[in-house]
Amino acid sequence: MRPGSHRATGLLDDAALVRAMLRVEVAWARVLGSSLELGDWVPSLDPVEVEAAGNPVLPLVSALRSRVSVSVHTGLTSQDVLDTAFVLLARDAVERVSADLGRVAAALAGLADEHRSSVMAGRTLTQHAVPITFGLKAARWLTGVLDAVDELEVVARDLPVQCGGAAGTLSRVSDPVASATAFAEHLGLVWPGMPWHTYRAPITRVGDSLVRTCDALGVMAADLLTLGRPEIGEISEGFVAGRGGSSTMPHKRNPVLSVLVNSAALQAPGLGAQLHLCAARAVDERPDGAWHAEWPALRALLEVAVVAASQAAELVEGLEVHADVMARRAREAAADLLAERGGGDDPGSYLGAAEVFVDGALKRWRGR
Amino acid sequence: MRPGSHRATGLLDDAALVRAMLRVEVAWARVLGSSLELGDWVPSLDPVEVEAAGNPVLPLVSALRSRVSVSVHTGLTSQDVLDTAFVLLARDAVERVSADLGRVAAALAGLADEHRSSVMAGRTLTQHAVPITFGLKAARWLTGVLDAVDELEVVARDLPVQCGGAAGTLSRVSDPVASATAFAEHLGLVWPGMPWHTYRAPITRVGDSLVRTCDALGVMAADLLTLGRPEIGEISEGFVAGRGGSSTMPHKRNPVLSVLVNSAALQAPGLGAQLHLCAARAVDERPDGAWHAEWPALRALLEVAVVAASQAAELVEGLEVHADVMARRAREAAADLLAERGGGDDPGSYLGAAEVFVDGALKRWRGR
Amino acid sequence: MRPGSHRATGLLDDAALVRAMLRVEVAWARVLGSSLELGDWVPSLDPVEVEAAGNPVLPLVSALRSRVSVSVHTGLTSQDVLDTAFVLLARDAVERVSADLGRVAAALAGLADEHRSSVMAGRTLTQHAVPITFGLKAARWLTGVLDAVDELEVVARDLPVQCGGAAGTLSRVSDPVASATAFAEHLGLVWPGMPWHTYRAPITRVGDSLVRTCDALGVMAADLLTLGRPEIGEISEGFVAGRGGSSTMPHKRNPVLSVLVNSAALQAPGLGAQLHLCAARAVDERPDGAWHAEWPALRALLEVAVVAASQAAELVEGLEVHADVMARRAREAAADLLAERGGGDDPGSYLGAAEVFVDGALKRWRGR
Amino acid sequence: MRPGSHRATGLLDDAALVRAMLRVEVAWARVLGSSLELGDWVPSLDPVEVEAAGNPVLPLVSALRSRVSVSVHTGLTSQDVLDTAFVLLARDAVERVSADLGRVAAALAGLADEHRSSVMAGRTLTQHAVPITFGLKAARWLTGVLDAVDELEVVARDLPVQCGGAAGTLSRVSDPVASATAFAEHLGLVWPGMPWHTYRAPITRVGDSLVRTCDALGVMAADLLTLGRPEIGEISEGFVAGRGGSSTMPHKRNPVLSVLVNSAALQAPGLGAQLHLCAARAVDERPDGAWHAEWPALRALLEVAVVAASQAAELVEGLEVHADVMARRAREAAADLLAERGGGDDPGSYLGAAEVFVDGALKRWRGR
Repeated sequence: MRPGSHRATGLLDDAALVRAMLRVEVAWARVLGSSLELGDWVPSLDPVEVEAAGNPVLPLVSALRSRVSVSVHTGLTSQDVLDTAFVLLARDAVERVSADLGRVAAALAGLADEHRSSVMAGRTLTQHAVPITFGLKAARWLTGVLDAVDELEVVARDLPVQCGGAAGTLSRVSDPVASATAFAEHLGLVWPGMPWHTYRAPITRVGDSLVRTCDALGVMAADLLTLGRPEIGEISEGFVAGRGGSSTMPHKRNPVLSVLVNSAALQAPGLGAQLHLCAARAVDERPDGAWHAEWPALRALLEVAVVAASQAAELVEGLEVHADVMARRAREAAADLLAERGGGDDPGSYLGAAEVFVDGALKRWRGR
Repeated sequence: MRPGSHRATGLLDDAALVRAMLRVEVAWARVLGSSLELGDWVPSLDPVEVEAAGNPVLPLVSALRSRVSVSVHTGLTSQDVLDTAFVLLARDAVERVSADLGRVAAALAGLADEHRSSVMAGRTLTQHAVPITFGLKAARWLTGVLDAVDELEVVARDLPVQCGGAAGTLSRVSDPVASATAFAEHLGLVWPGMPWHTYRAPITRVGDSLVRTCDALGVMAADLLTLGRPEIGEISEGFVAGRGGSSTMPHKRNPVLSVLVNSAALQAPGLGAQLHLCAARAVDERPDGAWHAEWPALRALLEVAVVAASQAAELVEGLEVHADVMARRAREAAADLLAERGGGDDPGSYLGAAEVFVDGALKRWRGR
Repeated sequence: MRPGSHRATGLLDDAALVRAMLRVEVAWARVLGSSLELGDWVPSLDPVEVEAAGNPVLPLVSALRSRVSVSVHTGLTSQDVLDTAFVLLARDAVERVSADLGRVAAALAGLADEHRSSVMAGRTLTQHAVPITFGLKAARWLTGVLDAVDELEVVARDLPVQCGGAAGTLSRVSDPVASATAFAEHLGLVWPGMPWHTYRAPITRVGDSLVRTCDALGVMAADLLTLGRPEIGEISEGFVAGRGGSSTMPHKRNPVLSVLVNSAALQAPGLGAQLHLCAARAVDERPDGAWHAEWPALRALLEVAVVAASQAAELVEGLEVHADVMARRAREAAADLLAERGGGDDPGSYLGAAEVFVDGALKRWRGR
Repeated sequence: MRPGSHRATGLLDDAALVRAMLRVEVAWARVLGSSLELGDWVPSLDPVEVEAAGNPVLPLVSALRSRVSVSVHTGLTSQDVLDTAFVLLARDAVERVSADLGRVAAALAGLADEHRSSVMAGRTLTQHAVPITFGLKAARWLTGVLDAVDELEVVARDLPVQCGGAAGTLSRVSDPVASATAFAEHLGLVWPGMPWHTYRAPITRVGDSLVRTCDALGVMAADLLTLGRPEIGEISEGFVAGRGGSSTMPHKRNPVLSVLVNSAALQAPGLGAQLHLCAARAVDERPDGAWHAEWPALRALLEVAVVAASQAAELVEGLEVHADVMARRAREAAADLLAERGGGDDPGSYLGAAEVFVDGALKRWRGR
């Protein structure tokens, strides 16, 4: 029902989480010397048991133990499994977001280059300021996107396995460090040297970088919504048959993708704050509620970001830029746009370092 | 996967939303003079079409028009249908929450009465202060719950139908006011005299009262978590076979319900804030993203509150109060607890107005 | 440095808080049978002592006891004084907000009436929809403002005194209920029957209604920012010499008041959420940090609302409505605006219930 | 009035902001070839003019131009000056936070080492789990603090100058890149290659790392509050005469510093989210309210972090660890603490990798 949620199909739903938990148990079984072949078995968990346990791990382990005869799970605590499973979901989601941001960046680089001389009115506090180019605007959006890409790359590199046992001492594991290291290797994750049951920066770092991604996309979407108003008309969302229609008004072509990306950017900051609040309340050796409050926020934020990045890619790739409208408006508004300089009638002659900044952004993009 | 989500089964999921939208369309068809018999038909909507339309209403109306030959939906806009459907979901959820809060209140009233003389240490800034009674503590929690109940009652009374057409003028409806009024009556809702496409207090009021509900339950849960620490041991969560077990430690009996209610209270404020942010950005005649950002927060908040209220009812009904432990500790700490008075050894002789306050809360509860 | 903060001068600063605490101590001294004459004495408090005590009350009481010889403060706890002082600040702030909302409402009622026939383009998801009138838009804003006024009236009626002593039992007060009642009467507040040290709805209710106020004003400001874009030009902020100038562009007339009210609406939801979070963490008999986290959020929210309401009043009273531009645009866009009806060229002939809604809102306003 | 705010005296108040703006103007004057000698001149700005301009820069520049005869400010926009001034404040604040975190880390490293063998009960979901050591707990807190230190170091290295002119093209500046670079050098900041008027990651990055700092300190404070409860008694805040007293209870010694640090951690997430929301709404070439909403949140977050880090340093340096109480409790609870292993009576014999993790954290600390 959330428009666009199909763009994250299979990535973040309950089945994906159960599959991720199973991957974690399989990896740990390997550490224990057991070999598990589960095929595509996905047990359905009784929600009453999930609540009774406080989380889905215990029911999953019960189901697993009914199915296989080898040793599984021994030495881990529920949080080891669930945290690591969420890290696996996050890894997949971040990978998708990064790929789609790559598409956004490429499209924006194209626009920045193509429109490096497309003069338009600069607008500050909603009013006309001095002239800019659409290329500069695209280059600014690009910079935000590239920063998000860089940050996600760093985050993806350090995604940690969770491995601490009952209270973070790995008390029941024979060779703790070797086991944790092997566990991480089996999953392609990092063993950070210590469990992080109550130290949630691995989660808040993922969160913050996704919020920053949504910030960058949101500014772009909000700008496009303004530029696409009928009275401004300097851009349009690419036309796709059947999209943006109205149930009552046949002429209507709503900028659906911009609206939805904008909507994502309004949601991300609160979700990120939820993760931090949970981090700040991660008390004792494992917390009494803050951990549970983290899951829905993390899943929601991952989904919001995956969907928004995918929508943004399609949005920018299909964007129609009406450089003629921009140019006409800039000429008509020349008196205002050039007031700072003291007058004139060619806004294109007063662009300052616009092109330098475009080149800088493109250079950075190409250097990646 | 969210522990306890089965307590809201069927209330708030996608199918429930589609059913609610159909109820709205049926009611409007009646206004249009059409009679719809849909039985338990629930169409499945193509998510690509949902995104293309920006919301699920257009695909739903298409499915509906393929199925029935009478006039449907004419004159409404998508937001009329979706807002009203969410109001229907909210009504069901608020009703459930209120019923469960009634159980919580009854149980707390019982505890307040029973333990009006159960002396215990008062604790401020985590340290022992003067003596109180457990009855007073229960009476304070009760007051919070009764306020939430009262507020939800007011909110439930005024739940409005949304009815405005394309831009809030009901331009395509022949007798707008009569139609809107009849529409509301068919659904048991209120016609507030004007559409509220961009005026979201009907939503934020529901949200705020649910957040306040979670605040009240959360304080109680957090207190119970403290009182149930092994070193304090003044209460225990009622024992239920299989609940609160650990995957590794056989002796363990985690206070699962308190943990989950606590977790709800950490989530609600952010969700309520999201609704306000969307309200503040509900621009133009229908907004460009803020409305879309409202849905997931509203659904999440409704679910959080429904689940927490149900868990809280079970928690308080099953609570084990160890008045003997309270009394013993109070005696042992008498020197500190009675320092304000200048000394003494009977904490029960220095309870101030504790019983008066208990009686006041009980009187209020009985007067309902 | 916050633009507009002078509109709250003397209401909410440190000196105002100290004065309010002194009023509380004077009222309590009366309860104790002491008569205090402090004139306009405002002691300066040593910040090191404030921190050592965890709040400013203890240093204030020390200063007070050095100055007067009668009995003061006995029986109260710091939180009684500080909570009640904040309630007094809130009362003053709410009164100011209400008065300014009254001005906003009067001005909007005038605009709604005057422009009941001023046809303009309706806009949904940023695009042209069906025609509306500016009067309808003003009537919608008015409805939001009237709801805020009604809610603030209810809140103001029930503002409570805090009176509980060390742990909420009034253990050291001889006749607790009579004393608390008299205390409340001296301050023109309500004695709610029980202390609310850990039950924070009295604070969150003030908060929620102020957030709702900012939501209502924020929607209006955001709409005005859009309508005042040079390409739309359907309204302007009233001209005031020296306001809205640019440091570099002589022609510029920034819509400063709209910008600032919009900025307030972006801040209020987070501040309100902070109050709820503190409410949800108000543990034990007096909490271990949540209470302290409440103060800055409450003060910031009160200031944001006082300033925004005052700015909004000036904004609406001075608003310039360009009905001719609206009419011209509506005519030019008639093909789109009337597509729902199937065509035509007079947008003014397709206004649905717009005038009925205007009359409804005006009737409500007049009925106050 | 905020307990502890004197720890940030002179860093973040209005005078500090004005001084920072003057430093920015002086640096820019140098770029323009002017030499300004302002001594310790700090003009007082008329708040009515601040509001009229929408920010304090225009009044400041007027005051400056009345005072000096050389060319100042030419080519900059208000946002260049205010953003850069906030960056200067942030730099000072981050430096202070880092220094105090260094003290926290040193003290925690000492505790981790000293108490590497101090056995205590591990606690999960508030209940006893397996044994841990206090050294491990300290090492976990240390890890959080070291991560915050590392992150702040990165942030501090890249703090950028803002330099864009009216709409981000530096239209009025003769040699834009050279000027911006020199400007940055004069202030010891980085020229990021492009203005960031609408790309707010430089601000959200500071914000996120300060929130993460408060998360790390908050977990520690919350743990200390639990461990310091009279029924647990495993730590105490160091005694300082006059601190933590009660206005009514002579015996009381409130853990004031822990309470205040805990309170900071409850505030930081919301403030960080506010910065992200403003980033997501930074539209056009300079935004219409989102920028203004950023200032108070940034200042509040900087102050919260500066104060909390300073309090945390004092807290940890003075901490009293009652290893005997820990040991006694662990022995008494041995049956539960060792249930995972299947029994025994020496909790110190079941510590898993606790010491390995301590050594890892200490190695990291020493390697800095």
